[in-house]
Amino acid sequence: MEKIYRAAFTHGINVVSANKQPLALPAAERTALLHEARKHFRAYHYETTVGAALPVIETLKNLVRTGDHVITIEGCFSGTLGFLCDRLVHGEPLSAAVRQAKDLGYTEPHPRDDLSGLDVARKAIILARELGLQVELKDVVLEPFVPAENLREDDPEKFLQSLAKLDAAVAARVAASKAQGKLPRYLARITPGAAGPKVTVGPVEVEASHPAAALRGAEAFVAFHTERYREYPMVVRGAGAGGEVTAAGVLADILRLAQNIRGRR
Amino acid sequence: MEKIYRAAFTHGINVVSANKQPLALPAAERTALLHEARKHFRAYHYETTVGAALPVIETLKNLVRTGDHVITIEGCFSGTLGFLCDRLVHGEPLSAAVRQAKDLGYTEPHPRDDLSGLDVARKAIILARELGLQVELKDVVLEPFVPAENLREDDPEKFLQSLAKLDAAVAARVAASKAQGKLPRYLARITPGAAGPKVTVGPVEVEASHPAAALRGAEAFVAFHTERYREYPMVVRGAGAGGEVTAAGVLADILRLAQNIRGRR
Repeated sequence: MEKIYRAAFTHGINVVSANKQPLALPAAERTALLHEARKHFRAYHYETTVGAALPVIETLKNLVRTGDHVITIEGCFSGTLGFLCDRLVHGEPLSAAVRQAKDLGYTEPHPRDDLSGLDVARKAIILARELGLQVELKDVVLEPFVPAENLREDDPEKFLQSLAKLDAAVAARVAASKAQGKLPRYLARITPGAAGPKVTVGPVEVEASHPAAALRGAEAFVAFHTERYREYPMVVRGAGAGGEVTAAGVLADILRLAQNIRGRR
Repeated sequence: MEKIYRAAFTHGINVVSANKQPLALPAAERTALLHEARKHFRAYHYETTVGAALPVIETLKNLVRTGDHVITIEGCFSGTLGFLCDRLVHGEPLSAAVRQAKDLGYTEPHPRDDLSGLDVARKAIILARELGLQVELKDVVLEPFVPAENLREDDPEKFLQSLAKLDAAVAARVAASKAQGKLPRYLARITPGAAGPKVTVGPVEVEASHPAAALRGAEAFVAFHTERYREYPMVVRGAGAGGEVTAAGVLADILRLAQNIRGRR
C-alpha cells in the first residue's frame, strides 16, 4: 500500500486514507513515506485511522505544534471491544457477546483479529509517533482481550465455540470488578516519559470517575493529559468506528485538501 | 473590530481571532465580513471563539460540509459559570463563589458580564450560524445565571455584596436538585428544528447520565447530536477558557494558515 502512496506523491497526487498499516510500518519506512510527500509538497491526511471521524489526529497535531507537552494519552480505540465490554457488564457471556458482535458486523471476518488487540496497538503507535516518539509495533506492551493461547484457532466458527470455555472465568472477573464499583475496559496508554516512551494496550478495570467508565455501546474516546490540560484532560468521545462515520471523516480530509488547493492563486 | 478585519482582507491579510463580536453581529454585517474574506481569497480562522483550543468550530464545519444533519448542539461554554455551578454543588454560597471566581481572575472585571449569560449567547449564535441558521443574538431565549433584576448594580463591589441576598434561595434550589440526583449547569442548546431554529441559553438541572454532569471545575463541553452520531453524541470536553489554552488555539489557527500558504507553489 505504501508503495502506491509513494508513487502518488511522486506524481503530484495528494493522499487521503483510513489505512493504518503504512503509518504503523517500521519507522524507517514510515519516515521515507512522509518524506516523499514533503519532497513533492503533497498532503497526506489520515484523520480516520484513529477514532474514525472523531477529531483525534488533528487535535494532537495542534497540541504538539503549539508546544504543549503531552504527559499521557489514554483511549479506548476499538468500538468492537467497547461493545464487548458493555455486553459483559450487562451480564452476557463472552462467547455470546462475541457472536453477537460478529452478527452485527462489528468484528473482522475472524473475530480473533479484534480480540488480539493488534488493531488497537496500531492506533496507539500512530498517536505515539505523532508525538515524535521512536516506537515500533513490537515495542507495544500488548495484552490481548483474552489470553493469547485462546487465539490459535484458525476457523472462525470453531473459534467462536472455543470461547465458551472462558465464559465462567470472564463473568467472574467482571462481577468482581463491578462489586468494587469498577468497569472492564480495553485501554491504550501512551506515555512519553522521562525514562523513555511506553505504549501499553490491554484490558483494565477503571473507576467510575474515569472518562472511559462513561462509554456506552461501541463508543470510543481519547483523553489528552498535557501540561496545558493538566487538571482535567481534553477528551473527545463518540462513535469511533463504522462505515458511515469513517467515510464522512475521509470526505472531511478530502474537502480540507480541496479547500487549501482552491485558495491558491 | 470588523472594520479592521475587512480592511485586512482587502489588503491581502489573513485573519485569526478569538474575538466573538464580529461573528455575533447582525447577519448582514457578518455576511459582508465573510464575503470580503472570500472575495480576496483570505482565510478567517476563529476556532478559539467557542471553547478556546477545544476542537469545536472545525469539528462542526466538518460535520456540516460532509453532509451530516445536526439535530441538536448542547454545551456548557462558560468556564466561569461552570466553576460557579461546581462551587454551588460543593455547598458554597453564591456570593462567596462569585467573589472567589473574581479573585481567581475567572470573571470579567464586572462579574455581571458573566452572570448575564450574554457571552454564552454569543457563542451559541456563532455555532448556530455555522449550521447556516438565520438567527440573531436577540433571537436567543436567554435566561441569566441569576434573575435579571439582580444585574442592575453598576459598581462591581456593591454588586458582589448584593448577591448575598440570593444565597439562601440558590442554596435551597441546588440542594433540592441534588436530592433528586440532579446537578445545576448553565447550558446552551441549538436546535435547527423543522419549525424553525431555536437557541436557548440558561440554567438547567441535568441528570447524572448527562454529559454535562461529569464536568468538574471550569471545564467546558459540547455535544453534537447528529444523524450520524444519533445513538450517542460526539462530545468534546476540557478546559474551555483561560489565557494559555486560548493563546495555544490562536497559534494553532495561525500555524494551520501558515502550513496552507507554505504548501503553495
